[in-house]
Amino acid sequence: MDTVLLIDEVRLTPILIADPPLLNTQGVHQPYTPRLVVEVVTRGGVTGIGETYGDGKYLELARPLAEALPGRPVSDVNGLFALADEVCGGSRAADERVDAGGLRGAQTVDKLRLSVVSGFEVACLDALGKTLGLPVHALLGGKLRDSVEYSAYLFYRWAAHPGADERDDWGAALDPAGVVGQARRFARDHGFSSFKLKGGVFEPDREIAAIRALAEAFPGQPLRLDPNGAWSVETSLYVADQLKGVLEYLEDPASGTDAMAAVSAGTDVPLATNMCVTTLAELPDAFARDAVQVVLCDHHYWGGLHRTRELAAICRTYGVGLSMHSNTHLGISLAAMTHVAATVPNLDHACDSHYPWQTEDVITARHVFEGGRLTVSDAPGLGVELDRERLAALHRRWLDDDGRMRERDDAAAMREAEPEWTAPPVPRW
Amino acid sequence: MDTVLLIDEVRLTPILIADPPLLNTQGVHQPYTPRLVVEVVTRGGVTGIGETYGDGKYLELARPLAEALPGRPVSDVNGLFALADEVCGGSRAADERVDAGGLRGAQTVDKLRLSVVSGFEVACLDALGKTLGLPVHALLGGKLRDSVEYSAYLFYRWAAHPGADERDDWGAALDPAGVVGQARRFARDHGFSSFKLKGGVFEPDREIAAIRALAEAFPGQPLRLDPNGAWSVETSLYVADQLKGVLEYLEDPASGTDAMAAVSAGTDVPLATNMCVTTLAELPDAFARDAVQVVLCDHHYWGGLHRTRELAAICRTYGVGLSMHSNTHLGISLAAMTHVAATVPNLDHACDSHYPWQTEDVITARHVFEGGRLTVSDAPGLGVELDRERLAALHRRWLDDDGRMRERDDAAAMREAEPEWTAPPVPRW
Repeated sequence: MDTVLLIDEVRLTPILIADPPLLNTQGVHQPYTPRLVVEVVTRGGVTGIGETYGDGKYLELARPLAEALPGRPVSDVNGLFALADEVCGGSRAADERVDAGGLRGAQTVDKLRLSVVSGFEVACLDALGKTLGLPVHALLGGKLRDSVEYSAYLFYRWAAHPGADERDDWGAALDPAGVVGQARRFARDHGFSSFKLKGGVFEPDREIAAIRALAEAFPGQPLRLDPNGAWSVETSLYVADQLKGVLEYLEDPASGTDAMAAVSAGTDVPLATNMCVTTLAELPDAFARDAVQVVLCDHHYWGGLHRTRELAAICRTYGVGLSMHSNTHLGISLAAMTHVAATVPNLDHACDSHYPWQTEDVITARHVFEGGRLTVSDAPGLGVELDRERLAALHRRWLDDDGRMRERDDAAAMREAEPEWTAPPVPRW
Repeated sequence: MDTVLLIDEVRLTPILIADPPLLNTQGVHQPYTPRLVVEVVTRGGVTGIGETYGDGKYLELARPLAEALPGRPVSDVNGLFALADEVCGGSRAADERVDAGGLRGAQTVDKLRLSVVSGFEVACLDALGKTLGLPVHALLGGKLRDSVEYSAYLFYRWAAHPGADERDDWGAALDPAGVVGQARRFARDHGFSSFKLKGGVFEPDREIAAIRALAEAFPGQPLRLDPNGAWSVETSLYVADQLKGVLEYLEDPASGTDAMAAVSAGTDVPLATNMCVTTLAELPDAFARDAVQVVLCDHHYWGGLHRTRELAAICRTYGVGLSMHSNTHLGISLAAMTHVAATVPNLDHACDSHYPWQTEDVITARHVFEGGRLTVSDAPGLGVELDRERLAALHRRWLDDDGRMRERDDAAAMREAEPEWTAPPVPRW
């Protein structure tokens, strides 16, 4: 193989990006959230980029992987998993529990490692595509569609972070009218016609009312509600019954496969998940018990774009629906999400994306949704370019931080407003 | 995307290749067997090659696909399936039963279409790899090993086809001594240390004796027996009991998922299959019932190299073993098999290959097994080149044939020796 494809250097740049005060069941998004930008530079002088979670636990695993990569072919993405097993996490068992914060459900060393690998895999595919003159979708067997549909991601939110000035003109959204207003603006600005509300924030009846208001404002359009596992089986069934015929799907109403299976047995509303099933190992049991009818792929969870395609094949085989989850991400990941989504035949639902909430980015030209869709790029690689000045500025913010923002902790952020706050036990209602 | 990657022309060349008088439960291999060579030529002037089954039923589906491809990017292999659904098979339902002969179990239009697509997908990947200067394994995410292990494929056989002169010096193998002699020659010539015997030919005790003789001759080495579904559940359990501790796995002892599940429930000998599960649709039921412990991939069955990788991911997820099946194939397919096998982490067993029995080929340099293994090529594409003179000669044989060899029919071939022969009903014993 041509030596131009060998990896010469890997650069890791942790950054802090601005994030609005979006509410969820654990608390509120911090003013800044960490993210890691991965650059893979080939001997041919081509740089590929990827991004993933940037908290300390991820950085700790990413650094040895970055050191181990030089000299390997950039096309060798299958080999990243064994390499990560070998070099990342030292003597820790793959199933050791890790508290990395956030809403990812039970965390293990193995799951974090998959998230780290995903950033490297995308960077490798970007570099490979740029070298070959091929878009990333072509490296995955080719696109099946020219654009990918996204869904509006609605949040209960405050106008500003506690004790801070307003950074945007969205204002607060804490009731049905606020949620509908947010949805209307998303529909107007981006053309979204599918809506997801992050729930688990207020008592269920208040969230049911918000969904009903959305259904009235957008009759017949797909609506989703995601309380991040905050409800008991009984509450989940109550909500499902109240919103029957209104919801496209209910996402993670309850926590864990047992509870999800119990909910599923009692309702015809499809259940989706990005908490109860987030690795292949968790999948057979959940499928056998019909605990979920839609799995949310997310290349950051599943270990990259190839693994996402494998998950899609499993869902296709088992007649389980497929949608796409979003974490707080930038334009690099949105490009990767769009490429892989374009190659999957059975992406049955519009993809989630936080992107419209992320006003800061590290790419030179922001993605633009039209009619709620992103055009699949045919440019080499991901089709996005790193804005080095922006990257440097956001990295400087990370360097200058006193450590409080470097780990995402929505409960700690909530304590700025409610000093007694702790992340509520599950089920919360 | 660069127009050099657009497909300019697709050439289909049906050929007849010499085949020894190998016995199976349906009859005997014909003196010649049909095969289809697919050439995909890009506007950049690069030719990629693939091969698949060559019987009339496959040719009928391949021709409209070949006509539909020009103008499409050669990298667009994901799109081949929808295209084949659209253009091949006309108004026939995907699940319509088709009798295409052979040992493939229940045949449907959809299964034949996947076999046709596999030949086109490999040709496209070969052309893409040659254009980019990348080996096919790199187009699949990169190899995980530098060589792939193959198993010796032992057959009961006659010295010559009925009424014909001997074409080779293997002689007959119709008893344990003959089988062991064959195995020794395979071990000596190719270094194979894993052995599979095609069974279902003689009554089970005779085949048990052959496996025992192999176990004595090659103590501790992996042994497999494959009667192609010829046995009842009771007979299968009897054989499994007799060969407990001797067999690596028993392949398709009985026919269909019901029977395989019943056998599986009664023995600890792992059951493998390339008959009861040959498409993704057949897989969930068989896995749920623990009917098979090893699935044999075969890119000709499953729809190409990408689909083979997806099958591997499903097996990995469900804790089911993976091995590789072989049909009567040439060096193009052996190259493709080796590339994909190199990229799959969970290929737990040596791959099957008929290749040593195929003395005729259409590539310029035959593959050479060393220590039972093939080195994974790092040359662009598949790493094999078409021998156009050989291809033309074998095509001339197909043109000159009176039609009898153009459809593989092992029962008809057997009637040359035993005029009253019909393919026995299942179970045969």
